[in-house]
Amino acid sequence: MPAQIISGKDISAAIRGELRQRVFALAARHGVQPGLATVLVGTSPASQMYVGMKNRAASELGLHSRQLTLPEETSQEELLGLVAGLNSDPAIHGILVQLPLPGHLRKTRVIEAIHPSKDVDGLHPVNAGRLMTGSGPFFAPCTPLGVVDMLLRSGHDPNGKRVVVLGRSNLVGHPLANLLLRKGRGGDATVTVCHSRTRDLATVTRTAEILVVAIGRPEMITGDMVSPGAVVIDVGTHRVPDPASEKGYRVCGDVLFREVREVASAISPSPGGVGPMTITMLLANTVESAERAAEDV
Amino acid sequence: MPAQIISGKDISAAIRGELRQRVFALAARHGVQPGLATVLVGTSPASQMYVGMKNRAASELGLHSRQLTLPEETSQEELLGLVAGLNSDPAIHGILVQLPLPGHLRKTRVIEAIHPSKDVDGLHPVNAGRLMTGSGPFFAPCTPLGVVDMLLRSGHDPNGKRVVVLGRSNLVGHPLANLLLRKGRGGDATVTVCHSRTRDLATVTRTAEILVVAIGRPEMITGDMVSPGAVVIDVGTHRVPDPASEKGYRVCGDVLFREVREVASAISPSPGGVGPMTITMLLANTVESAERAAEDV
Repeated sequence: MPAQIISGKDISAAIRGELRQRVFALAARHGVQPGLATVLVGTSPASQMYVGMKNRAASELGLHSRQLTLPEETSQEELLGLVAGLNSDPAIHGILVQLPLPGHLRKTRVIEAIHPSKDVDGLHPVNAGRLMTGSGPFFAPCTPLGVVDMLLRSGHDPNGKRVVVLGRSNLVGHPLANLLLRKGRGGDATVTVCHSRTRDLATVTRTAEILVVAIGRPEMITGDMVSPGAVVIDVGTHRVPDPASEKGYRVCGDVLFREVREVASAISPSPGGVGPMTITMLLANTVESAERAAEDV
Repeated sequence: MPAQIISGKDISAAIRGELRQRVFALAARHGVQPGLATVLVGTSPASQMYVGMKNRAASELGLHSRQLTLPEETSQEELLGLVAGLNSDPAIHGILVQLPLPGHLRKTRVIEAIHPSKDVDGLHPVNAGRLMTGSGPFFAPCTPLGVVDMLLRSGHDPNGKRVVVLGRSNLVGHPLANLLLRKGRGGDATVTVCHSRTRDLATVTRTAEILVVAIGRPEMITGDMVSPGAVVIDVGTHRVPDPASEKGYRVCGDVLFREVREVASAISPSPGGVGPMTITMLLANTVESAERAAEDV
């Protein structure tokens, strides 16, 4: 039987439909429109594209969307001042500073300047810390949050399962492991994290009932590394040269799809998988921030 | 061959010897004496004993030790004001609020009031977050920090090893997993976290080259759950009834020592293992805090 395809596009559409209802409810009950501010320093075309996609998605959902574009030479003080202004602006519930920043700006200082209650990217250490300790409301980074939601909505609750996370980045692997380990919905998994220092990787990956791959190497996970019937989520995206293609390249993930689909019971491929979830969870965090503010949580 | 005994007492003595040198150096180079303030609210005999032990250990090491004991009925505002005073007191480099607090005080609020740079217990979310993201200097909670140091100093570097952590508490299991997963010294392990929801626990624990047990159940880990040659660290401490003993009880850990010592290559027993490390790492964090302040890190 071919593997179930877990589509981030379909799941995103479902989540955005629910978010639209919550946006209506916020307007009706509290007269509040959730607001997302994006901050872009410089003119990187890739960053411009990402920021544009986020703002467009926010507008389509009925959010107030404010795009702030600053020149490359913006000073640290100016940027911190702008963030401080957004922190105290009641129309803004989520602040996203697009990374990477130009070299003269200190990323850590800028991220720590965002108020944790508006850090919808989930990068402030207070949010990372509360994710770990469960000591208060927090925002989790969007991609790992999206992975957990995909698992839940595709019928693969991690509760009690052996989950192997491949990769320990600050954006994906590390926070994902902490999310899966928490008590409660989306958590309660037995979590193993592997990375470049892991010996005999295939032995570890084959213990997984759910395998999430975010290691950043094209098609590294082959069929023999996956236990029959496992659920596989591929977070990687790469362009690899492909003379047979018109463009001269093709897009692939960290997983060798054609092999792993024959072994897994379900797979979220790349492209066509996690991709749209990241922006969807950014919108979800922004709506949640507005709800918390309206309900004074 | 009987298992190597990893003694927290011996390792603590070595660390405290090194710390004493660092305290001398701080005095000589910067004219600074590290200062630890402990705050105890109420009259719980157990808490009084713990706080007393911490202050005594600090004094013996040549630290400035300040013990603040407040009545049970101390208000939240009064406690927060006192913490704010310690935050701005240049003679104090470490602040420890003894837990648990009386029921009318909000633990989370009090802990978050401690400045992260003086939170030598490693409980502030900024410290937990930086432990996870590596985005700045942090303090890790003392018991997991002690476990990592015991492994390193007894010749069992976790780098590249399969480590299984049993337990996901905020004080031990969860931060320990994050410490072991970091890049660099004491980290780079392949980490699995198990807990009450883990199915077929013995299968998972037998994959461990290093097994750290902090699950809170007396003598739960039996010999058959341990892989031959594994290194086992027992973090649990329990009093269990024992009619054969004069006191009517005996102290044991989470590990069935008499069985596991026959299987493991090295074991840190309980009692006689991790115990003294927690206070030692509190002293280490306090000295480090003073060094950071003196060197303006």
